[in-house]
Amino acid sequence: MSLWFIENLEIAQDLRAQVQVRNRLHSEQSPFQKIEIFETTGLGRMLTLDDVIMCTEFDEMAYHEMIAHVPMFAHPNPRRVLVIGGGDGGTVREVLKHPSLEQVDMCEIDERVVRVSQEYLPSFASELTNPKVRLHFKDGIVWAREHKNEYDVILVDSSDPVGPAAVLFTDEFFGYCHEALREGGILVNQAENFYFHREIIKRMISFGKKRFPIVRYYFTVIPTYPGGQIGFTYCSKQPRPSDHIDRATGGARSMNLRYWTPEIQRAAFDLPRFVRDDLGMGQD
Amino acid sequence: MSLWFIENLEIAQDLRAQVQVRNRLHSEQSPFQKIEIFETTGLGRMLTLDDVIMCTEFDEMAYHEMIAHVPMFAHPNPRRVLVIGGGDGGTVREVLKHPSLEQVDMCEIDERVVRVSQEYLPSFASELTNPKVRLHFKDGIVWAREHKNEYDVILVDSSDPVGPAAVLFTDEFFGYCHEALREGGILVNQAENFYFHREIIKRMISFGKKRFPIVRYYFTVIPTYPGGQIGFTYCSKQPRPSDHIDRATGGARSMNLRYWTPEIQRAAFDLPRFVRDDLGMGQD
Repeated sequence: MSLWFIENLEIAQDLRAQVQVRNRLHSEQSPFQKIEIFETTGLGRMLTLDDVIMCTEFDEMAYHEMIAHVPMFAHPNPRRVLVIGGGDGGTVREVLKHPSLEQVDMCEIDERVVRVSQEYLPSFASELTNPKVRLHFKDGIVWAREHKNEYDVILVDSSDPVGPAAVLFTDEFFGYCHEALREGGILVNQAENFYFHREIIKRMISFGKKRFPIVRYYFTVIPTYPGGQIGFTYCSKQPRPSDHIDRATGGARSMNLRYWTPEIQRAAFDLPRFVRDDLGMGQD
Repeated sequence: MSLWFIENLEIAQDLRAQVQVRNRLHSEQSPFQKIEIFETTGLGRMLTLDDVIMCTEFDEMAYHEMIAHVPMFAHPNPRRVLVIGGGDGGTVREVLKHPSLEQVDMCEIDERVVRVSQEYLPSFASELTNPKVRLHFKDGIVWAREHKNEYDVILVDSSDPVGPAAVLFTDEFFGYCHEALREGGILVNQAENFYFHREIIKRMISFGKKRFPIVRYYFTVIPTYPGGQIGFTYCSKQPRPSDHIDRATGGARSMNLRYWTPEIQRAAFDLPRFVRDDLGMGQD
C-alpha cells in the first residue's frame, strides 16, 4: 500500500503536489484552521494547514533562510525584528543567528500552530523559548497598526491569501508595516510563485511602491511549494539587497547555513525575463 | 469531474506531480516507449513518455532556453552543434536563433517522438524542417562514438536515466562526447534535480572532470519537472560560462527570449550552499 497526501490549494489547481506519507501523527481543528503533522517517506515530518503544505523537514531551510537572511544581511544593524505568522518557529530560528539582534517579536494568530510545532517539529520551534523572543498570539494586522517606528526588519511569514492570512495581502497592511518600520527599515513578505501567481505579486509590489523607494522580488527553490519555487517582496526604506554584502560574507560563516550564500543574496533577485518584464522589475 | 495525470517516475517517488487535464489527444506505444499528448487545464499541451512529463507549452521555455543558450552564449563562435535526444524540437528551435550556427545535427533514437511533436506541438517542432537541421533517428551513443572533432557544442536533451536514455548517463558516453567536440567545445547534459538526484549529478560531474578542465552545474526553475527545478552539467574544453557575456547581451536582443537573461547566465550557476558543498562546486 502507498499512502499519499494530496495538496488542495485554491490558487494551485492546474498542477498539484502529492507527498508520500507513512502516517499522520497529529490532526486538530483550531479556531482558525485544520492543523496536521505527517511523517513522510522521504521528506521528514510535514506540517499542513487546511490541506496545504506549510513546511517539511527536508526543504524548510530553503524558505526560512531566504525569508530571514536576505533582509537581515541587507540591513546594516538589525536590532528589533517583527515576524508576523511563522508559527512553526523556523523564521525566528534564523533571525536569532544574527548577533546584532536584541529582540524579535513574533505575532502569530493561531497559538495552536506554535504548540503543535513545539511538540512535533522541535528542529523548527526550539528557539521560540530563547529569551530574545516575545510571542504574541494576535492578529498580525492589529499588531502592525499598534506599533509605530519600532522595527528594523519585518518578516511576513504567512500562508496563502485565502483563509486567515488574506488580510496580510492588503494595501492597508503594507501601510501599517511601513509605519511600524524605523528609518532604513526593510519589509519582506511571502509572495508566492512567479509562474502561477503574478497577479498577487503585482498587487503586493504596487502596495510596496506607494511607500518604499526600493521594491524588489526575489525567490528560493523549494520542492514542496507549488511549482517548486516561492518568492518574497523586498520593500526597503533605504538598503539595497547587496549594500552590505561584505559584512554578510563574514558574518555568515558561523551561522551553519544550508541554503543562503553571499552569491545567492544577489542571484535570488535575477528573475527570468518573462517575470522581470511582467513585474516591471529592473536589476538591483 | 476533474481528470488528473499523475506522474510516475522511478526516481521521484516521495513527491509527485499531478496535472489537471481536459483530455488525452494522442497515445501510442513506439518501439521504445509510450508516447502521449494531453490537453491540460492550465498548462497548454503536454508531452509525456512512459508516464513522465517531458514538457508543457506553459513552461518549456525554462528548459529549452537554458539548455541551449547558456553554452551557445558561452562559446565564442558556435558553428556546428549536436543535439542528442530532444525529439520535441524545442532545443533545436533555440539553437537556431544563433546567427553563427551553420548546422545542427539532431540524433533522436525514437522517430515517433518527433512525428508526434510535429503534429501536436508545432510551436516546439516547426523549426525541425529548417535547412540548417539534419535529423538522424539513431542511438545517441553510437552517433557520438562515430563522430570525432566535429562539434562546437553538444546538448544532451535526454529523458531520465531509466529506460532508453540510461546509456546517456555513462562514463563511456561522456568520453565519446569529449572526442566529438572540437577544441574549445562545450558539452551540456540534462542533469536532474539538485534536491533529489545529487548522486546522479555527482556521477556525471565525475565523468566530466576526468576529461574537461571546466565542469559546472547550473539550473532552471520549471514547475512541471520533479521538485520544480532541473539542472545541467556544463563541461567545457575552454570557455567559462560568462567569458563572452558582452556578446551575449547584445546578441540576445533580437531572439525573443522569455527566460534567459545575461544576469541569469551567471546566476544559474550560484547554487544553494548544501548543493555547492555536496557537489564540490566552486563559483565561476
